[in-house]
Amino acid sequence: MEVVEVLRMNGGVGETSYANNSLVQQKVISMTMPIKEEAMTKLYCSTSPTKLAIADLGCSSGPNTLLVVSELIKIVNRISMKLGCKSPQFQVFLNDLPGNDFNTIFKSLPSFQEKLRKQMGSGAGPCFFNGVPGSFYGRLFPSSSVDFLHSSYSLQWLSQVPDGLESNKGNIYMAITSPPSVLKAYYQQFQKDFSLFLKCRSEELVDGGRMVLTFLGRESEDPSSKECCYIWELLAMALNTMVSEGLIEEEKVNSFNIPQYTPSPDEIKSEVIKEGSYAIDRLEVSQVNWNAYNNDFNVAADAFKDGGYNVAKCMRAVAEPLLVSQFGEAIIDEVFERYREIIAQRMSKEKTNFVNVTVSLTKIGPKLDDH
Amino acid sequence: MEVVEVLRMNGGVGETSYANNSLVQQKVISMTMPIKEEAMTKLYCSTSPTKLAIADLGCSSGPNTLLVVSELIKIVNRISMKLGCKSPQFQVFLNDLPGNDFNTIFKSLPSFQEKLRKQMGSGAGPCFFNGVPGSFYGRLFPSSSVDFLHSSYSLQWLSQVPDGLESNKGNIYMAITSPPSVLKAYYQQFQKDFSLFLKCRSEELVDGGRMVLTFLGRESEDPSSKECCYIWELLAMALNTMVSEGLIEEEKVNSFNIPQYTPSPDEIKSEVIKEGSYAIDRLEVSQVNWNAYNNDFNVAADAFKDGGYNVAKCMRAVAEPLLVSQFGEAIIDEVFERYREIIAQRMSKEKTNFVNVTVSLTKIGPKLDDH
Repeated sequence: MEVVEVLRMNGGVGETSYANNSLVQQKVISMTMPIKEEAMTKLYCSTSPTKLAIADLGCSSGPNTLLVVSELIKIVNRISMKLGCKSPQFQVFLNDLPGNDFNTIFKSLPSFQEKLRKQMGSGAGPCFFNGVPGSFYGRLFPSSSVDFLHSSYSLQWLSQVPDGLESNKGNIYMAITSPPSVLKAYYQQFQKDFSLFLKCRSEELVDGGRMVLTFLGRESEDPSSKECCYIWELLAMALNTMVSEGLIEEEKVNSFNIPQYTPSPDEIKSEVIKEGSYAIDRLEVSQVNWNAYNNDFNVAADAFKDGGYNVAKCMRAVAEPLLVSQFGEAIIDEVFERYREIIAQRMSKEKTNFVNVTVSLTKIGPKLDDH
Repeated sequence: MEVVEVLRMNGGVGETSYANNSLVQQKVISMTMPIKEEAMTKLYCSTSPTKLAIADLGCSSGPNTLLVVSELIKIVNRISMKLGCKSPQFQVFLNDLPGNDFNTIFKSLPSFQEKLRKQMGSGAGPCFFNGVPGSFYGRLFPSSSVDFLHSSYSLQWLSQVPDGLESNKGNIYMAITSPPSVLKAYYQQFQKDFSLFLKCRSEELVDGGRMVLTFLGRESEDPSSKECCYIWELLAMALNTMVSEGLIEEEKVNSFNIPQYTPSPDEIKSEVIKEGSYAIDRLEVSQVNWNAYNNDFNVAADAFKDGGYNVAKCMRAVAEPLLVSQFGEAIIDEVFERYREIIAQRMSKEKTNFVNVTVSLTKIGPKLDDH
């Protein structure tokens, strides 16, 4: 399986699309917005650029795609008005893998831009939008060409399924029953990928440029901790019940592994320090309930209650293309129906949260060293 | 009809897709390549930039989309090797309206980039690709951010159907029977659109930056000249036979007008001079047969013979979304079947060429004035 070719959020705007099932990711963006706001404020106040290049890495396709960049643009616009200086020209780069549904984003842009212009008023700088197809585990932009980089719930995806997972039978991710060699293989892949990511971005960021990254991660130092692995263990359960009924070949499950790693704050910090191009401004952990409707009293009681349904749909929007590539289209509905039931049972009995780790970085350049 | 929302080449890679029916446009790109090569060579040799931003405006989706930019990149790479200097980093911007099929382009990029890397060898600079959705009759890029702009067979499309075409009954474009007010309305729309285009691009180009534009145009000073209007007159004929048989409402044809203007070299020159930001380096006319297979002895004899089929398919790939928005899906196959027959008849009797007008421009900036 080539992750670059297979990994994508469900496209379009239909029932099972990511666009309609990404409320958790939206909540995470809102929760971590103060960190991004602080970083952008510091960037803008220290450099007051006339052009500001902002990139969202792993932008996906849906309401979240333009959420962060529009907030960032509004922040800069507000500050520049307050300071009485001219709002910069904004160049926005929306990055995701080539299989992402960019067409749907692009078709929504004219009305989005119109709305943004109205919200910002007449003094605001023009905004230019670009789509950037490609893996962020490689270069995406020319040297020293981006001022602000942002990524939310994307960097936990690895560039490939780690090598050496043959012994992870019955599991589809790290699990309590995974042998130590599996945990090691996953961690090494994360180290390799994230250090490459940091290196590429350090070439692309201007000196003093900033980057705010939010991972789906964990608090514990144990990589097989329930807080990060449970959601996939329940999917493995659903798949394994179908194996036991002869609906899926056992070998297919044994050889299937999710190309993800949910790092701890210390693991992130360690790679940043090793890479050496960044100062860490903030490193924070937050949590969000699996069921994004959990604390939202504006939605219908049904949506609030049927957590299993919501969570399974959210996971389907994220993982369906991966599963289809391994197991084919035919079994997908059944898998997610069983997954929904399993999730619903568990959620009724225990607290089920995703853990978010956010790191805010500044690129240390020669100019900063002079001071 | 909002042109921005309706105008696009047929997407995907199927039978009626633009991707599979754009050989004429490809020939035009090849024919005018020496003009682009000269412009790029002069640009590169005079400025030797370490980063080179190249934009293709109206890139569509198909084999032509990456053709020009890849040629331009190879040219620069060759020159830099010859001069013994380091190849620049290339940033490529592929622009088209938001309804263009960017997904298909983006999915083809990884293999394209791989091929390009192999062709160019190890010394070549990295290439970064971006999609830029939006009308080129408005700003697309930040100020002074693009070195080289290119557009082929796109600028004949107007930003809107001109106002005041009520009297153009029975025609769908300028025609010999069009009243003078119709010709005037078309020309004024062209002047308004092209002058806005020139102004926007002059803000986006760096000083000394270059731009090569190829229009579907005409040689004659008469805007209703057969060389540019005949292809649409034949489509009007097909539609009118269906009106006479009650298959299409007459009013639908009367109120349908193609948002295009095929300018003469003098009309182009006049707008460039009026706008004032550019020096005209070259202004040239060329011709290409309606049937792109005409001079191509590599293709099967069938394809060569059935010119009507080829030309109708090419026109369908270009005009189908416009026609669907006016007449609905149901009649499309029938329209193009009749169009095919009419074209085949005419092609057997007369020489049928498209006229291309290419202009090569340099942005005159304050830096150049200093010399």
